[in-house]
Amino acid sequence: MGRLTGGDPSLLRRINSSVVLRALRGTAEPPALTFTDLVHDTGLSRPTVEGVVDGLIETGLVAETPPEAGVPGDPRRGRPARRFRFRAEAGHVLGVEIGAHRTAAVLADLTGRDAGTATRDVGETDCADVRLEQVRGAIGDVLRRSGVPRDSLRAVGVGSPGIVRADGTVGLSTALPGWTGLPLADRLRRSFRCPVLVENDANAAALAEHWKGAAVGTDDVVFVLAGLSPGAGSLIGGRLHRGFNGAAGEIGALHLLGREARPENLLSTTGEPLPPLDEPAVARVFALARHGDARATEAVDRYVRRLVHDVAALVLALDPELVVVGGWASGLDGVLEPLRRELERHCLRPPRVELSSLGATAVAVGALRLALDHTEEQLFAVEGAAAR
Amino acid sequence: MGRLTGGDPSLLRRINSSVVLRALRGTAEPPALTFTDLVHDTGLSRPTVEGVVDGLIETGLVAETPPEAGVPGDPRRGRPARRFRFRAEAGHVLGVEIGAHRTAAVLADLTGRDAGTATRDVGETDCADVRLEQVRGAIGDVLRRSGVPRDSLRAVGVGSPGIVRADGTVGLSTALPGWTGLPLADRLRRSFRCPVLVENDANAAALAEHWKGAAVGTDDVVFVLAGLSPGAGSLIGGRLHRGFNGAAGEIGALHLLGREARPENLLSTTGEPLPPLDEPAVARVFALARHGDARATEAVDRYVRRLVHDVAALVLALDPELVVVGGWASGLDGVLEPLRRELERHCLRPPRVELSSLGATAVAVGALRLALDHTEEQLFAVEGAAAR
Repeated sequence: MGRLTGGDPSLLRRINSSVVLRALRGTAEPPALTFTDLVHDTGLSRPTVEGVVDGLIETGLVAETPPEAGVPGDPRRGRPARRFRFRAEAGHVLGVEIGAHRTAAVLADLTGRDAGTATRDVGETDCADVRLEQVRGAIGDVLRRSGVPRDSLRAVGVGSPGIVRADGTVGLSTALPGWTGLPLADRLRRSFRCPVLVENDANAAALAEHWKGAAVGTDDVVFVLAGLSPGAGSLIGGRLHRGFNGAAGEIGALHLLGREARPENLLSTTGEPLPPLDEPAVARVFALARHGDARATEAVDRYVRRLVHDVAALVLALDPELVVVGGWASGLDGVLEPLRRELERHCLRPPRVELSSLGATAVAVGALRLALDHTEEQLFAVEGAAAR
Repeated sequence: MGRLTGGDPSLLRRINSSVVLRALRGTAEPPALTFTDLVHDTGLSRPTVEGVVDGLIETGLVAETPPEAGVPGDPRRGRPARRFRFRAEAGHVLGVEIGAHRTAAVLADLTGRDAGTATRDVGETDCADVRLEQVRGAIGDVLRRSGVPRDSLRAVGVGSPGIVRADGTVGLSTALPGWTGLPLADRLRRSFRCPVLVENDANAAALAEHWKGAAVGTDDVVFVLAGLSPGAGSLIGGRLHRGFNGAAGEIGALHLLGREARPENLLSTTGEPLPPLDEPAVARVFALARHGDARATEAVDRYVRRLVHDVAALVLALDPELVVVGGWASGLDGVLEPLRRELERHCLRPPRVELSSLGATAVAVGALRLALDHTEEQLFAVEGAAAR
């Protein structure tokens, strides 16, 4: 980048700062960069780089590294050149999962490096206030255990079941009591000075698998959060497709059209509907089927047929490169082969089908990615163009 | 745009040309623009504008308009200022529909203004060679009738059933005999010196409805090409979503999963399957149902239930703002209300549902838009950024 003529000097300084910061973040562990390195990497003048680095040290985002033994100094000056590094520990981001049975908080530094996790159990019938209390508890736990002060948080991402509006309100959620209409972002914002970003849980999981799971390197992905009623999150060209109302991927509603069995009946072996969120009961049915129980096998077949149908609808509508199946910890290995087989048979261009590699952590890790994206936009955006 | 320092002078000239051309195209009918207008509109210097306009007149894209009576002249020169206009007639684009029963060619000038249409009937069992012969015939007809020489064509867009690969080969099409595997773009390219762009018919129709049909001003749209087996084209954020394999929206395959009636049986009133492409037979069933015939009413109900299910799958996966239903000319007015009612009942966020306002011309008009987009990119793109 050359010198910019004219314009707002504070904007220019902000742009130069983010250019230098990006160059410093790009370096791995020490050795850090010298002024000469930064002049070379950024195309800025040496006085500009020196001024910008001083400013960044003041804000705490950059630190001078101690001179290393054995590293030759600048021959013109006769002493080691000063070196600087990005202070990933200068801030933190938090990813929060709010689920039916569990809430989890994952903490990371500004490069996304794991800094701790805490979980708290919740009951599926707990009201919103109790659930939020447990969320705050998990967050408090992870901050305390890791020794990170609350003020160090730059952004908090949250993954939660339901359709989430742009303002962070839950537009509709049938999974959690009292969740529909809850101004979730507003409620959590009171506990933080930083932005709180709320996202649908399947959407968050899709981001997570793309970042560090089964979808690394694949930009057209459907993540299926399997459950008695499945939901999905989609990346198109590497970006989340939320839909016009934030409702894209809510494929579980498709069964309502078919006057067929409701999802609670699909996996029932007794004729009585299973409680929709009772994962242990679901795991028992899958386990019975694995051991050859006839009624359980029949129930699992019913369930898999429905899942195949719902996933096929997503695949035919979106034509992704990859489908990642996650959600339930147990039983899912049994659905992969039928899914592949049926999609091969009926889709014109069947996608790859893989199991989630992040498992139970996908939603929280995706919420963390959301918070990290937001923070990086703040730190590294030059005139609105986010850099990654 | 200010002066660019350094760089390739021919690139700079090309950029300046497209800036001036865009300014000229932006004006409606006469009065055209003066040099002074262009200096004001583009920010370029007067000598640059004069040089660029001279070059554009040479290429035929710009013409000087005759001085108008009563328009005051440039007071410094004492004669009327010269005025220039974009020559929309300097080139043409062609939109071609290749269907089961009909092929159509729509001609337009460089602003997309209609310059003629020709259609030719084809038989649904015709082989690819015969069908392509009729396509060439329709194209010849419209060029001859409108007096536009073939060399004036800047791009040809083609809409055709099936999954179309990026290279213009038909990857899979069950609707037209001999179509699967056909290198359609290559075959047609021999007749033209300009680019030939092939697109799935439902995708083309989606572009058309967005350009000048039921989806004007709406950027998140699913266009459903109703038929015994429906297909769909989707715009997300105003851009076509083709999918990883170009197969997005091929929702008709969903019924294959359900071990239910095949589409040919849905609308049958005799127990014998309807020929899948027999539109008159389909129209007769819809007409009978309107007159209260019990078996026809039952058949239409079966058909509508299937259509509702397929459209619901698209809506749940994509969450569009608007669904446009087109395809069959007759009978579709009967499906709109059930579609709206069922989507209202079962989708979490039901979209608006409208009938196509372009009807039978949607595919050809969409193919024209495709050709026009390509031409505009060539004429107006500045360093890869398409301008519209």
